[in-house]
Amino acid sequence: MCRTPDGSASPLTRREGPHVALDTATGTQAESVLDALANPTTEEVESLDAWWRANNYLTIGQIYLQGNPLLRKRLASEHIKPRLLGHWGTSPGLSLIYTHVSRLIQRTGQEAIYLAGPGHGGPALVAASYLEGSYTETYPRVTQDEAGLLRLFRQFSSPGGIPSHVSVTTPGSIHEGGELGYVLVHAFGAVMDNPGLLAVAVVGDGEAETGPLEGSWKGISFLNPARDGAVLPILHLNGAKIAGPTVLARKDPEEVRSLLRGHGYDVIEVEGADLPGMHYRFAAALADAYGKIRAIQDAARGGDWDGQRPQWPLIVLRSPKGWTGPEEVDGVKVTGTWRSHQVPLSGVKGNDEHLALLESWLKSYRPEELFDAFGAPTELVRRANPAGELRMSASPHANGGLLTKDLDLPDFRDYALDVPRPAAVKAESTRQLGALLRDVYTRNDDRFRLFCPDETNSNRLGAVFEVSDRAFMERVTPEDVAIGRDGRVMEVLSEHNCHGWLEGYTLTGRHGMFATYEAFAMVSASQTVQHGKWLEEATHLPWRAKVPSLNILLTSTAWRNDHNGFSHQGPGLIQVALTQRKDVARVYLPPDANTLLSVADHCLRSRSYINLLVIDKQPQLQWLTMDEAVEHCRRGAGIWDWAGNDDGSQDPDIVLACAGDVVTMETVAAAQILKERLPHFRTRVVNVVDLMTLIRPRDHSHGMEPTYFKELFTDDTDVVFAFHGFPGAIHQLVHGRPDADRFRVRGFIEEGTTTTPFDMVVRNRTSRYHLVMDAINNAKRTPRGATELTAWCEQKLAEHSAYVVEHLEDMPEVRDWALGDWAEKG
Amino acid sequence: MCRTPDGSASPLTRREGPHVALDTATGTQAESVLDALANPTTEEVESLDAWWRANNYLTIGQIYLQGNPLLRKRLASEHIKPRLLGHWGTSPGLSLIYTHVSRLIQRTGQEAIYLAGPGHGGPALVAASYLEGSYTETYPRVTQDEAGLLRLFRQFSSPGGIPSHVSVTTPGSIHEGGELGYVLVHAFGAVMDNPGLLAVAVVGDGEAETGPLEGSWKGISFLNPARDGAVLPILHLNGAKIAGPTVLARKDPEEVRSLLRGHGYDVIEVEGADLPGMHYRFAAALADAYGKIRAIQDAARGGDWDGQRPQWPLIVLRSPKGWTGPEEVDGVKVTGTWRSHQVPLSGVKGNDEHLALLESWLKSYRPEELFDAFGAPTELVRRANPAGELRMSASPHANGGLLTKDLDLPDFRDYALDVPRPAAVKAESTRQLGALLRDVYTRNDDRFRLFCPDETNSNRLGAVFEVSDRAFMERVTPEDVAIGRDGRVMEVLSEHNCHGWLEGYTLTGRHGMFATYEAFAMVSASQTVQHGKWLEEATHLPWRAKVPSLNILLTSTAWRNDHNGFSHQGPGLIQVALTQRKDVARVYLPPDANTLLSVADHCLRSRSYINLLVIDKQPQLQWLTMDEAVEHCRRGAGIWDWAGNDDGSQDPDIVLACAGDVVTMETVAAAQILKERLPHFRTRVVNVVDLMTLIRPRDHSHGMEPTYFKELFTDDTDVVFAFHGFPGAIHQLVHGRPDADRFRVRGFIEEGTTTTPFDMVVRNRTSRYHLVMDAINNAKRTPRGATELTAWCEQKLAEHSAYVVEHLEDMPEVRDWALGDWAEKG
Repeated sequence: MCRTPDGSASPLTRREGPHVALDTATGTQAESVLDALANPTTEEVESLDAWWRANNYLTIGQIYLQGNPLLRKRLASEHIKPRLLGHWGTSPGLSLIYTHVSRLIQRTGQEAIYLAGPGHGGPALVAASYLEGSYTETYPRVTQDEAGLLRLFRQFSSPGGIPSHVSVTTPGSIHEGGELGYVLVHAFGAVMDNPGLLAVAVVGDGEAETGPLEGSWKGISFLNPARDGAVLPILHLNGAKIAGPTVLARKDPEEVRSLLRGHGYDVIEVEGADLPGMHYRFAAALADAYGKIRAIQDAARGGDWDGQRPQWPLIVLRSPKGWTGPEEVDGVKVTGTWRSHQVPLSGVKGNDEHLALLESWLKSYRPEELFDAFGAPTELVRRANPAGELRMSASPHANGGLLTKDLDLPDFRDYALDVPRPAAVKAESTRQLGALLRDVYTRNDDRFRLFCPDETNSNRLGAVFEVSDRAFMERVTPEDVAIGRDGRVMEVLSEHNCHGWLEGYTLTGRHGMFATYEAFAMVSASQTVQHGKWLEEATHLPWRAKVPSLNILLTSTAWRNDHNGFSHQGPGLIQVALTQRKDVARVYLPPDANTLLSVADHCLRSRSYINLLVIDKQPQLQWLTMDEAVEHCRRGAGIWDWAGNDDGSQDPDIVLACAGDVVTMETVAAAQILKERLPHFRTRVVNVVDLMTLIRPRDHSHGMEPTYFKELFTDDTDVVFAFHGFPGAIHQLVHGRPDADRFRVRGFIEEGTTTTPFDMVVRNRTSRYHLVMDAINNAKRTPRGATELTAWCEQKLAEHSAYVVEHLEDMPEVRDWALGDWAEKG
Repeated sequence: MCRTPDGSASPLTRREGPHVALDTATGTQAESVLDALANPTTEEVESLDAWWRANNYLTIGQIYLQGNPLLRKRLASEHIKPRLLGHWGTSPGLSLIYTHVSRLIQRTGQEAIYLAGPGHGGPALVAASYLEGSYTETYPRVTQDEAGLLRLFRQFSSPGGIPSHVSVTTPGSIHEGGELGYVLVHAFGAVMDNPGLLAVAVVGDGEAETGPLEGSWKGISFLNPARDGAVLPILHLNGAKIAGPTVLARKDPEEVRSLLRGHGYDVIEVEGADLPGMHYRFAAALADAYGKIRAIQDAARGGDWDGQRPQWPLIVLRSPKGWTGPEEVDGVKVTGTWRSHQVPLSGVKGNDEHLALLESWLKSYRPEELFDAFGAPTELVRRANPAGELRMSASPHANGGLLTKDLDLPDFRDYALDVPRPAAVKAESTRQLGALLRDVYTRNDDRFRLFCPDETNSNRLGAVFEVSDRAFMERVTPEDVAIGRDGRVMEVLSEHNCHGWLEGYTLTGRHGMFATYEAFAMVSASQTVQHGKWLEEATHLPWRAKVPSLNILLTSTAWRNDHNGFSHQGPGLIQVALTQRKDVARVYLPPDANTLLSVADHCLRSRSYINLLVIDKQPQLQWLTMDEAVEHCRRGAGIWDWAGNDDGSQDPDIVLACAGDVVTMETVAAAQILKERLPHFRTRVVNVVDLMTLIRPRDHSHGMEPTYFKELFTDDTDVVFAFHGFPGAIHQLVHGRPDADRFRVRGFIEEGTTTTPFDMVVRNRTSRYHLVMDAINNAKRTPRGATELTAWCEQKLAEHSAYVVEHLEDMPEVRDWALGDWAEKG
């Protein structure tokens, strides 16, 4: 079904052979390739222009037509779709760039992918894949003939069809471009540790107004030309967004130049609307940019590099919005204005004038030259396509699961903490993870990176610096520690960059982890959501190979940002993850180091998930041996029988459940108090590591079976649940479980707090004393001694309050609390 | 208690009188003021330096000391706090800038506020307020004597005390600076329609790495020098963030200059660590910047303006991180490196060498010159303070509720749609709101703005353009529509800018609304969260006057972004709002125009809330007359008796509940089907406008009383709840209500969808047919005819599926559905 020409079919390849890889070319050969690239022949321009016209034709067809795809009949109302949806304005620019990059690929053998920042130019990218044949290879029903064309047109923005944006369904895409701002971060992530790849990233001038995009130009300060591939940004200033002009399009061009130079780029500009002049000028600009990229890479890779951050080339393309579309409609200027952003010519059905205008617009591309008798692209068009996997729409880099190699992981058990009995040892759990990650770096120096907003050491993951510096391409001084151009630990004070780089890195087949402050994970929450959407949609497309998961480690959690105050406290990302569909998102709350190691190993092996790992970096009590941790994590939740006094012979009086490290400690301490002071009151402690086990199995694949749920929580025993996050999260998770109303949840309260660690749990009413009182108050059977114990708890709380204000730290009895020897496990 | 000098006490004021407002000065007078400003006398520098030393002393005291605040005894371990918390590194730079701006205020009478981007320099800002006397005015227990000093030190980052960051508790602040990135957006928002104000905004070089900050320099493209105040950004490059160098600090200064010029600024640079040299140079730089600001404003206000966007001045200050702190500790360089970011000298308690180092460091500021015998700031220090409300820590602009004037609102009833009976009229509800907002603009041309990422027209709010253009200071062309420098509708394709500007605008006492795509509201979700935290904390501080609410209108909702596809569908912000504490967040889902108008009027009158208004912009059925709408909104939820067939004489068989416009239509349609086909099955329809009414009253002040909850939902009737957002939201809201398990919720499912409007509800299993089947299946009493009706529903769904794929639009029977005449109200 694929009609992509093989090498011998192309006149270009006859001259020079396809895939003349510049890597193996001599200096003279390279020069001549670049020279030819800069100066297209008339024949080449004909082919470029034909492909471009074909693309524009198909773009318009997708927006407008539900019949008569080749205009072989007079265009009539019945051929027009009932709803006109889609975006014309950006599309001609996107496809012009596309075909010129294809020519570059043909002449150089360069592996490239294409990221369309203005993702609403979806029809142009779908058309590109169709013209390259990969669309039909991917979706065989969309054949390269008239019937297939009709399918292509009708499916666009239609029920059961495809979205109006570049999306997961678009072959060759790793970037949707719906929520704007991330085209450069995805491109930079894609080329890290991917030296052979060129990521062409088109930045729309609307997108360029967003914060995340403006903050992402600095990717070159972290890009090593020897080890990484290259990003070629093309800032496409067509002047308008939905309803008005853009800032960059209306600034003095000298200011735009100054801005981009300030970001560190070598600016190449192309402007105009004249044809074929624009083809020649754009070809020359692209050759110029490509030559500079190759020179930078050759110097860095050949050892001829001064170590300075290169000034990477960047193209500013100024072309009219809606270029080649109707100049005016109903007497109003359309092309070159915001009016051509979406559907430049509306109300076509039943409007003869508009119908005629649409027909003449479509015919202006001379479809008869572009499609043969069967409706397939003609040789003139097809010869603009690169071959095989070099077609950007068929690049395996854009279906990164195909290239993914498993991580070579050490045995996580080797990093275990020795835990002779629960709550006897205190340790920084993430430090063990740091040691594991250090060895993951060593064993996978081409496929694993850690991304972090300047907190790797603060998060106790600093062991990675024993084997890798932080990446940094700007000036380094003698006082700097663990930083340099060969580093592969990615630290930039931007959650948007970190998150986006990791997305691009994993979507092209490598593995990683994003470690960040829990509260500030909300900065990139929308990226988490959008990436979840991408992964979810991909599960419905068998041709999309699974990619490494996006692992997010939330440290510096809400509960231990006591002193930093309210702005640093927020378990909101858990809440966001819960809105993700079914199998995409998983939330783990390992309570100690050994469970963390087990969970991390699982996450690093997993594919196509978003894994949230939530654990604090501060010294904390350790609970489980490695064997126990592995078993606990396998089940996701379980009874800690050593913590309670419930022998399993009958239902307990109360279940104390917990999820999250700090609240687990409080829960175990509460159980200890109850055991000691109310020995006849049967207390069961349940710890939850994998939050999704609480959901019913029909709603999440991790949801525990009803029988196991009953084994842990019984059918009707009251449950006091101490939760790391907002109580509402547990409320929604247990909805639909037997008698869900019996779950009384304590958790993080959104209220200003600056205090000590224990005072933090007191203020959130999740302290051991609060949990004891909750247990007594909520149990169906009020135990003897309840009144006295409540009074004792209240006294303890009063003592605490007085103490912390006086001493500015917690009382030794809670600060140094640990379980006694009696907790020794059998 | 306030020891702020009055005018006559200051030697400066003797020379020229305080508050020599340049506005009223003659040209020569102005020149001489600026000249004096640029060239401080020795006496002035002594005072500046004393104030600065005092501030540094107090900063270190807050971090380290719990006793011996004036070092009148030998420093001992017992004087050192048990936990050393806080950030020294940025603080000396922040206080240096502060005192120089104070001097500017003294000499010019300029009203100014100070925004510390590096908010972790909290102790410096607290110290500033203390030295200015406003801290003691605000918190009388923190007296200006030795006891007060001790309180000041001990409360910092302590239980029951204040956070380590600039926060709501800090007098003079409207910006916390915890989550980085928003200092410029807050500053720009603060000066809009505030022509007399200068907002000095310090950008840390860590913050400058974030996307939102980098994207916010463009504020000047929207700032009108005639009508708005001025922002003076000071980019404080001290070279390092938590653990390493920053990009801007290590770039070639020429690139930094180019970048900032590209952003449109006139760059003034100051660099060094020499004293008093830096005082003279910074004073000159500040005078230069201020002179330029005044020249720009004078020209624009005097009519001598070419209409071009001015190049506003910006200062780049390069000073060492941790300036004046210990050069080396334990043989390692500290000052000027990332090691001075937080506590440069740790492990002081019990370490004699460090203790001695701390003591000599503190004494290096010569506290005996700075504090008198009682511990109060000496005259030398105090004479650096401006007077009264000109002190930046006492500015009413930073306690904007003091300046807030109510909006002059038209009667919202005047914009009512005529609704003769439910579901007979279709209209775009937001268009009515647009008309209201137009008149709000007209009546409040100094205190209301709409903020929107380029979608005002798309959101059907375009009526505002009848009375105001979009603000735009860049080049305007003849084809542009409703755009220009006098515009006050704020459109920029950046949710971060829109949200942040509105925050700054409301915190300084003006009113506004942020209208955005529902899905892309997640881009600025963390800002919503952080602003909610600010408002929550402010409720505990009686001195903080309530400010106008942050109103967020979510249009282009999940349910009608059918064609744009999955990336444009997401009701996530509702979920985020639910995590806000108690009285801060409110979520409204008006189902039609008249309820929207009533809710909007309420929100525009409200104070210190975050109000989410969720309604689509597409034509939709109208349900309620204005009188009914007002009553319905007053209750927040109510029975629509005309929609069901439950006469109230006994409990219904099923409650069909709904919240959100699209799902309300499906619910009413489902009820109609049930009435017609199962007339003996008692169906009640409950519509919820104010989502927070569902929560128990103890958890939210809008929570409906148990009796009213029972009136609507009974105690045990099964409820099928069709919800606009994620089903989990309702699950968590009704938790704790009687038999919450009976609520079966249908809502948005996070799964890829591109389709027609009705197909969208079908795919989310929230269509009328699904709701009918749910009602039958969930009711305790299975009605006769249930099997036939289920079969009919399934057949309808099958017909629909076939139809949309064939016709690419919805079946006429659902597209054109309306209630029959029988729904006429009594």
